[in-house]
Amino acid sequence: MALSMRSWIDSANDPAGDFPLQNLPYGVFRRDRRAALGVAIGDRVLDLRACARIGLLEGLAPATVEASQTDSLNGLMALGRACWRPLRERLTGLLGDPEHRPMVDPLLVAMPDADMLPPALIGDYTDFYASIYHATNVGRLFRPDNPLLPNYKWVPIGYHGRASSIVASGAPIRRPSGQSKDAAEAAPRFGPSRALDYELEVGLFIGPGNRLGEPIPIHTAEEHIFGLCLLNDWSARDVQSWEYQPLGPFLAKSFATTISPWVVTLEALRPFRSPAFVRPEGDPQPLPYLTDPSDQQRGGIDVTLEVRLTSRRMRAAGTPPVRVSRGNLRDLYWTPAQLVAHHASNGCNLRPGDLLATGTVSGPTRDAAGCLLEITRRGADPLALPEGEVRRFLEDGDEVTIRGWSEREGAVRIGFGECRGRIEGLE
Amino acid sequence: MALSMRSWIDSANDPAGDFPLQNLPYGVFRRDRRAALGVAIGDRVLDLRACARIGLLEGLAPATVEASQTDSLNGLMALGRACWRPLRERLTGLLGDPEHRPMVDPLLVAMPDADMLPPALIGDYTDFYASIYHATNVGRLFRPDNPLLPNYKWVPIGYHGRASSIVASGAPIRRPSGQSKDAAEAAPRFGPSRALDYELEVGLFIGPGNRLGEPIPIHTAEEHIFGLCLLNDWSARDVQSWEYQPLGPFLAKSFATTISPWVVTLEALRPFRSPAFVRPEGDPQPLPYLTDPSDQQRGGIDVTLEVRLTSRRMRAAGTPPVRVSRGNLRDLYWTPAQLVAHHASNGCNLRPGDLLATGTVSGPTRDAAGCLLEITRRGADPLALPEGEVRRFLEDGDEVTIRGWSEREGAVRIGFGECRGRIEGLE
Repeated sequence: MALSMRSWIDSANDPAGDFPLQNLPYGVFRRDRRAALGVAIGDRVLDLRACARIGLLEGLAPATVEASQTDSLNGLMALGRACWRPLRERLTGLLGDPEHRPMVDPLLVAMPDADMLPPALIGDYTDFYASIYHATNVGRLFRPDNPLLPNYKWVPIGYHGRASSIVASGAPIRRPSGQSKDAAEAAPRFGPSRALDYELEVGLFIGPGNRLGEPIPIHTAEEHIFGLCLLNDWSARDVQSWEYQPLGPFLAKSFATTISPWVVTLEALRPFRSPAFVRPEGDPQPLPYLTDPSDQQRGGIDVTLEVRLTSRRMRAAGTPPVRVSRGNLRDLYWTPAQLVAHHASNGCNLRPGDLLATGTVSGPTRDAAGCLLEITRRGADPLALPEGEVRRFLEDGDEVTIRGWSEREGAVRIGFGECRGRIEGLE
Repeated sequence: MALSMRSWIDSANDPAGDFPLQNLPYGVFRRDRRAALGVAIGDRVLDLRACARIGLLEGLAPATVEASQTDSLNGLMALGRACWRPLRERLTGLLGDPEHRPMVDPLLVAMPDADMLPPALIGDYTDFYASIYHATNVGRLFRPDNPLLPNYKWVPIGYHGRASSIVASGAPIRRPSGQSKDAAEAAPRFGPSRALDYELEVGLFIGPGNRLGEPIPIHTAEEHIFGLCLLNDWSARDVQSWEYQPLGPFLAKSFATTISPWVVTLEALRPFRSPAFVRPEGDPQPLPYLTDPSDQQRGGIDVTLEVRLTSRRMRAAGTPPVRVSRGNLRDLYWTPAQLVAHHASNGCNLRPGDLLATGTVSGPTRDAAGCLLEITRRGADPLALPEGEVRRFLEDGDEVTIRGWSEREGAVRIGFGECRGRIEGLE
C-alpha cells in the first residue's frame, strides 16, 4: 500500500492520529444494545455486519462474510491469513476510494457512540515475563545478589492468567482484598491491598492456533498471531509476595486485567518490524525450537509504549496526566513468535481468541520501567506527582492510561488507542 | 430419599455399582453425531433433551427445561439450587417409579453407545494444592529441612491451569516435549519428557458464581458448587523443575488434563459429608473469611480415591491393573467451600462451568500418595509392577485409571465412574 494513500474520511488523515487507512484495527462495539464487529478509521467505527448486509464484502470467502457478521472476533481470528488479507484489501478500498463514500458513509459510527467491548471471547489467557529488564529489576528487589534465575535466558517464562476478569478499557478497577504479611508481622491479615500496581504489557491475540498434541514450529508461529492490543496486568504486590510461592501469582492478579479494545493486525505493523533482541556476549543462543533466521532479523516490533497517571487531586486541579513509564515492545528478550512456539512446544493447543501477554515491558533505563514496583523500588523511592503528591503504589481515584504507537520516517503512524482504568476503593 | 428406594432399571440396584438412583450424575454424551445432556443410571444414560421434548420435565422452571436441551452443562450449572433440586426430584421419580417405565425406557441409551464428552465449556480452570501431605512430601524432596512454606497453613495455595487442553476420560495422552536440565548438565535440552507423572485430583464444577468485584462469603460458597468429577493433572516433572521458578508450573502441566465425564452433585454426596480437616495443635486457625462453623462440621466429603496402572506388558500378559494410590478427599487441609471463598475473595469472578481442582490428594501414609513423584521419591525408590517391571515415572503404553466412590453403613454407594488415559509416545 502506498504511503501516500489517504482515506476520504478526513480524521483518518491526521498524521498524529491512531487510526489511519494503513491501520484498520478490529474491535467489537455495542450500539443500541447490539454488538457488532467494527474497524477503527480516524474518529469513526465502520460496522462490519452492516457492510456484509449490503453486499460490500461480496466476492470474499463465504467464511469471511459470515465471520464479519458475528459479535466477537473469534470467527475471523480462526480463518487465518488467507482470509485476513483479502478482507483488509477490501476495507482499504472501501475506505480509501471516494467512489465508495455514498455506500459506506452511512455505516460509520462516531467513536463516542460506540461502546467498546472486549474484542474476543478469550478462552485462555497466558502471561509471559519476556522483558529481561523487568525480570532483573524485580529479581534484584528480592534477591540482590542473584537477580536473574538460571532458567531465564533459556525458557520464555510464562504462567496461566485468569480469563474471566479481563475487562475492556474504561471499566472501573475495584481495589482487591487479600492476605498479606509484612516481615514484621507474626501472622497475615486480610484486607484491601496496600500495594496496588499497574503493569505495562502488550497482548497478542491468537489466530488459527493448533490442535492438541501438535506443536507450532517457530517458522510458522506468526501465522497464528491475529494482532496486538495494549494490556494492563493490575497487580496487588503485597498479596503477590505472600501468596506466590511455590505456584506463582494467583489472586494478586486475577481481580482484573484491562485490555485496549482495538486489535492492531500484524499486517498493519509490517513497516515497523525490527530485529529480535540482540543478546549480549555470553548469553546462550536459544534452543533450536526457538530459533528461526527470519525471526532473528524481523521478529521484533517497534512499538512505543507509554503509561500516564492522573490522581483525583490532579483531575480536580485540571493538571494533565503525568507520564510515569515509557518503553518499547522491541526491547523484549523473546519475540512474539518465540512466545507462541514455546507455548505450543509441549502440544498445548492455542485456540482462536486466546490471549498471550508479554509481561511487563521495561527497558534498560529507570524511566522505561513498566510498573511502580520497579520505578519506586518496592516503595522505597516514591514517585513525585505534580500536585505535591507522592506515590509508592496506586491510590483510590488514580487513573492509569496506556497508549502505544509505531512511527518512523517514511511510514504512516499506527496507533493502538488507549487502555485505561481507574481505581475504585472498596465501600 | 429413602435408602431403600430402587430404580426399575435393574443395573441401578447393584450395591457395588457407581450409578444408583441416589446418584444421578450429569454428563454430556454424543450419539449419532449429536451432543446432549445425560444422566447416568446403572448401565444406562438418560437423554435429558429427549425427556424435555416429550414433556417429562413439564412443570419445572422454563429455564430448567431450556437448559436441559442444550449440549453442555453450563446452562444448568448457572441456575443454582432452586432449579437443581426440583430437577433431581423429577428424575428420581421418573427413574424410580415403574409407572414411568413405558415413557422413559425408550429414552435410555446403553453406556457403551454413549460417547462421553467433557461435561461443560470450561472458561477458567484453577488448580489448588490443598493436600498438606502432598505439599509436605513434595516440599521435602526439594527442601529437606523446610518442606512446608510459611504461607501454606494460611493461604489455600492455587494457580491458574490451562483450560484448552482438558480432555474427557479415554482420550490418549501424548508424551510432551519440553526443556529440562539435570543438575549435572551445563545447558538444558529439549525433547520428550523423561519424568511423566499422574496426579490424583478431584475437580469442582462451579454453579452460579459471582460478579466481578463481588466476593463469595464462605457461608454461601457451597451454593456455587454444582458437583464433582475425578481429575488427572498429568505432569512432566523434569520440565516442571526447570521452568517453575518464579511463576509456577506452565508447560509441565498444560499439555493435557483428563477429567471423568460424570459430574456427581453435592446433593448426591450429602450422606457422605464429614468434618473439615482437624488441624493439629499449633496450626493457626483459618482467617475469618475462610471460617464458617457449619463448614468446620460438615465441609469435608468422604470420597475414597484410587489410582490403578496397567503397563503394555501387563495388558499383553492379561495381568489386571495394579493399584498405585489410594486416598480420601476428606484428607484435604482446605474444604471445597474454603477453596471457592478464597478464589473469589479478591473479587475474581467465577463463572458457571469453571473448574477448580483440589491438587494432588495424598494422605498420611505412603500408599496414600497421589502421584509417582511422591511414591518413588522423585524416582529414587522405584515402584515394582507385577510383570517384573519397575516404574520411576510413566512409560509409553502405561494406562492410568482413577476411580472414586463414597460408601458407608446405612447409605447407598455413590460412584464417580472412571477417569482414564494412556500414554502415547511421540512418533
